Amino acid sequence: MKRNRIIVIGGNACGPKAAARARRCDPASEITIIEQGYDLSTATCGLPYYISGVIPNQSSLLVRGAGYFKDVLNIEVMAGTRTLSIDRKSQTIAIADVKTGATSTRDYDKLVIATGSIPVVPRLDGIRLGGIFTLSTIADANAIKKHLSRPVKKAVIIGAGLVGMEMAEALVLLGIEVTVVDMLDRLLPNLLDFEMAAYLEKLVKSKGIKLLLSQKVTGFEGSSSGLVGKVITAGGALETDMVLLAIGRKPNSALAGEAGLATGAGGGIAVDRHLQTSDPAIYAGGDCVENTHLVTGQKVLAPLGSTANKHGRVIGSNVTGGKEEFPGVLNTAIAKVFDYTVARTGLTEQEAGRLGYEVVTALVPGQEHARYYPQSKDIIVKLMAERGSGRLLGGQVVGPGDVAKRIDVLASALTFGATVDAMANTDLAYAPPYNSAMDPLHSAANVIRNKQSGLAEAITPMAVADKIKKGANFILLDVRSEEEWKGNHIEAPQSKLIPLDSLRQYLDKLPKDAEIITYCQTSVRAYQAQRILSGAGFKNVKFMDGSITTWPYESTGAK
Amino acid sequence: MKRNRIIVIGGNACGPKAAARARRCDPASEITIIEQGYDLSTATCGLPYYISGVIPNQSSLLVRGAGYFKDVLNIEVMAGTRTLSIDRKSQTIAIADVKTGATSTRDYDKLVIATGSIPVVPRLDGIRLGGIFTLSTIADANAIKKHLSRPVKKAVIIGAGLVGMEMAEALVLLGIEVTVVDMLDRLLPNLLDFEMAAYLEKLVKSKGIKLLLSQKVTGFEGSSSGLVGKVITAGGALETDMVLLAIGRKPNSALAGEAGLATGAGGGIAVDRHLQTSDPAIYAGGDCVENTHLVTGQKVLAPLGSTANKHGRVIGSNVTGGKEEFPGVLNTAIAKVFDYTVARTGLTEQEAGRLGYEVVTALVPGQEHARYYPQSKDIIVKLMAERGSGRLLGGQVVGPGDVAKRIDVLASALTFGATVDAMANTDLAYAPPYNSAMDPLHSAANVIRNKQSGLAEAITPMAVADKIKKGANFILLDVRSEEEWKGNHIEAPQSKLIPLDSLRQYLDKLPKDAEIITYCQTSVRAYQAQRILSGAGFKNVKFMDGSITTWPYESTGAK
Repeated sequence: MKRNRIIVIGGNACGPKAAARARRCDPASEITIIEQGYDLSTATCGLPYYISGVIPNQSSLLVRGAGYFKDVLNIEVMAGTRTLSIDRKSQTIAIADVKTGATSTRDYDKLVIATGSIPVVPRLDGIRLGGIFTLSTIADANAIKKHLSRPVKKAVIIGAGLVGMEMAEALVLLGIEVTVVDMLDRLLPNLLDFEMAAYLEKLVKSKGIKLLLSQKVTGFEGSSSGLVGKVITAGGALETDMVLLAIGRKPNSALAGEAGLATGAGGGIAVDRHLQTSDPAIYAGGDCVENTHLVTGQKVLAPLGSTANKHGRVIGSNVTGGKEEFPGVLNTAIAKVFDYTVARTGLTEQEAGRLGYEVVTALVPGQEHARYYPQSKDIIVKLMAERGSGRLLGGQVVGPGDVAKRIDVLASALTFGATVDAMANTDLAYAPPYNSAMDPLHSAANVIRNKQSGLAEAITPMAVADKIKKGANFILLDVRSEEEWKGNHIEAPQSKLIPLDSLRQYLDKLPKDAEIITYCQTSVRAYQAQRILSGAGFKNVKFMDGSITTWPYESTGAK
Repeated sequence: MKRNRIIVIGGNACGPKAAARARRCDPASEITIIEQGYDLSTATCGLPYYISGVIPNQSSLLVRGAGYFKDVLNIEVMAGTRTLSIDRKSQTIAIADVKTGATSTRDYDKLVIATGSIPVVPRLDGIRLGGIFTLSTIADANAIKKHLSRPVKKAVIIGAGLVGMEMAEALVLLGIEVTVVDMLDRLLPNLLDFEMAAYLEKLVKSKGIKLLLSQKVTGFEGSSSGLVGKVITAGGALETDMVLLAIGRKPNSALAGEAGLATGAGGGIAVDRHLQTSDPAIYAGGDCVENTHLVTGQKVLAPLGSTANKHGRVIGSNVTGGKEEFPGVLNTAIAKVFDYTVARTGLTEQEAGRLGYEVVTALVPGQEHARYYPQSKDIIVKLMAERGSGRLLGGQVVGPGDVAKRIDVLASALTFGATVDAMANTDLAYAPPYNSAMDPLHSAANVIRNKQSGLAEAITPMAVADKIKKGANFILLDVRSEEEWKGNHIEAPQSKLIPLDSLRQYLDKLPKDAEIITYCQTSVRAYQAQRILSGAGFKNVKFMDGSITTWPYESTGAK
């Protein structure tokens, strides 16, 4: 019997996983991994922590040595080997030794393309200057570490995405003055809606990071040393000793494209649920392919090690006769940004709006566990559901508390098409060190249910700020205690304080027809106040979503 | 228009929540809470931490004062008032002032029974001796604290359930010598299967706690002081200075039962999905009712503050004209036991077996986050699915790492009837400080998939121990390194060491027909070894579930 020859192109995440799974499924196949670099299965997600020194040794990022593949898995590894082209007709690939340039060919029965992604590098003046880096590989990280052994005082990070924020923290830890520049108006613009990003922004600024948002970089200038010395933006020049380009990644799908395999609008290789490409003998997975978004059904890119590993398992099964499926992704993402964790799953409100969903939101400041148990930390939950059906569309969670748990619970719920009704009654684990009797996700789901049923009438902080700016005629009613008001409040001519426990006594003194917007610390009392006022016949009462905790502006009063 | 008169019996968790929700839904109803104690909404789940001093002040356990109900919610609170009986025909309750004994009656249109649960107290000789406590209320906690101001050196806790374990930790923190006695053979017998409990047992013993399992308490004897001095068990007498009875709680449903309302086999008040009792004018929620188990559809008790709060909201809506539903519970539970967290959701393997499910399990030692990121701690996952359908039935997670996240993800998945296929591909959040590329839940789901497909052949540690005990003829193959073997291994005549990376060289030296059971540290290498051996034509190879990490016995070698 002829042996099944499997060739895997790409030695990170998806590729090795596919190869190892193929071996476990089939002891007989001939399996080869072709990798242009010299390390396999490197933990590239750890690179910012390696640069900062949080992970002290490069070796801990090398998950598997070549010996493991050979001795344990009986898989041939060809490191330092570039794949030049795929001849689909003859089922042959052309390869070249990276060092010698010597070329040869290899035949395959099943080919796996796991070529990953590459950082986007804009064509700007001076882009090739020394001291400008991207971050994809251990080699990149070592180049940055080497550069940092010079006297580097200032760094500019271009791109306020995940890698940008992780590297901002890493460089601040190393004592460097960091400026983050982004074309868009907020931090983590693909992950967070405006008010959630604003909450994070306050932390990031408190760490001494300068933010230049809504700013386009137009070029770079060298210093006397010949290395980068200035970043040029529309708003002026920034002096710097180094630049990190972190404006995103794109699928490394050129090889597949040149071989005539179908690719999607975002440049990812098109695959079906079995991760089979338009050529039945060729599978593809990891950063180089398109995924199906489980909420929208649309094709999206999802360049993440976690997804790549899941792809690898599916492919390993399918190249050895299996018929496994990969259902899709939720674009779940998480990052540590100093003392906060930032995460989202599913759609943001902005994305959902763009896609034409009618969205109901909740913005809920909560606690990671029972307030009376020591050291409970804050988390802010933003939850989105489709108006009418109540189907969850996505969520964002930010704060110093246990964000990861909530985002994973939401990811699990979104996977199964959960509604807010189901979410509100999920039997999550409760004991004081771990949660409150009602999880912040329960509260957020209930806020959406209250909004849908008409009990809760709310207004976003952005809309309130707009009203204040326009000098609109309304009452901005703080229902906290006098002490809390003295600590901070929203400075505006419309502001008024009536503590919640006195509100019923003041019902006769407030104008019944006035527009009243209530707020407190977290919205719990503001919602209660709205119910009291609505119950007493006030016609135009709303509470402000998230209240003062998520007020996204600086204009609060004394403290 | 006649006002809707709502009476709520019970001032903890469900009752106040129902009342507050009713007020928010309807400004006009007349709402009264009747509570036999003097505090409302006390956080009784915090009592073990109040006793240990982790929560220093009693006041932080008083969530809401009576003023809040009156001033903010316009709800009448009758504290210190006992409900004597319910006359369903006239829609009247008879009440008595606890202090004066004065009785009166009250009419209702809607009645809410939220009378909670009471601790089970066995009728044993000496049960009324001083120094024997149960723990339900702040008064109980204060009585214990007062007793602890005497010279208390030794304490016996009867019952190794959640409260028993939390109190064991509390008393050890106070420097007391603690013995835990349970009739069943393990810790947390309603939450954990044997091997998971055994993993916890090692920790608990290391904290100096003595365990008397499979032991029945038959009575108590007094000391010279007239307080309890001895606990009598079938195995002998234990000297002690105090006793905590923590053998479970039962629904406080006598009032409902006497009024002729239907109750279930476990003594809980029977309610429908709207939490309506067999009398349409009466709703009931919290610890005193039965719940529907979402996996089995059967009626179960679920005395927990989290469930009580959810009940309260549903009832508050429904007594004011709403039609909300409470779907049911998963018996999710979590506890902090010293440095470990212990949790389960859904069914245990034992429960599933009793109910007639054919179960496939995974026992997976994992890490809370990427191993290469600092301070990653262990967690052990046990996952259960139905053979064939692959539908998840339940899970248990134990360890020093982030257990809470995994149990809540599982609870979310179980709510929606997830299969192991879906679980394995859930898009959980990944970044090195929060997870590995594959979450331990992904790994556990994949183990079950591999077992179902026949790739993985496994055997439980209990079955292996049994074989060793019987002197069976098999090879117990440790595939770790020599160094790891020296650290610890399973002492047995059947034991043999062949490190995984040498295994392929030894294939000719192992007997093809022998029964071989592989193990390593976490089962990853053991499974790989099983695949190598099976692939090489060995006919009877299995790996040991959980490997040495979850070996539930003491008989490992040196260390």
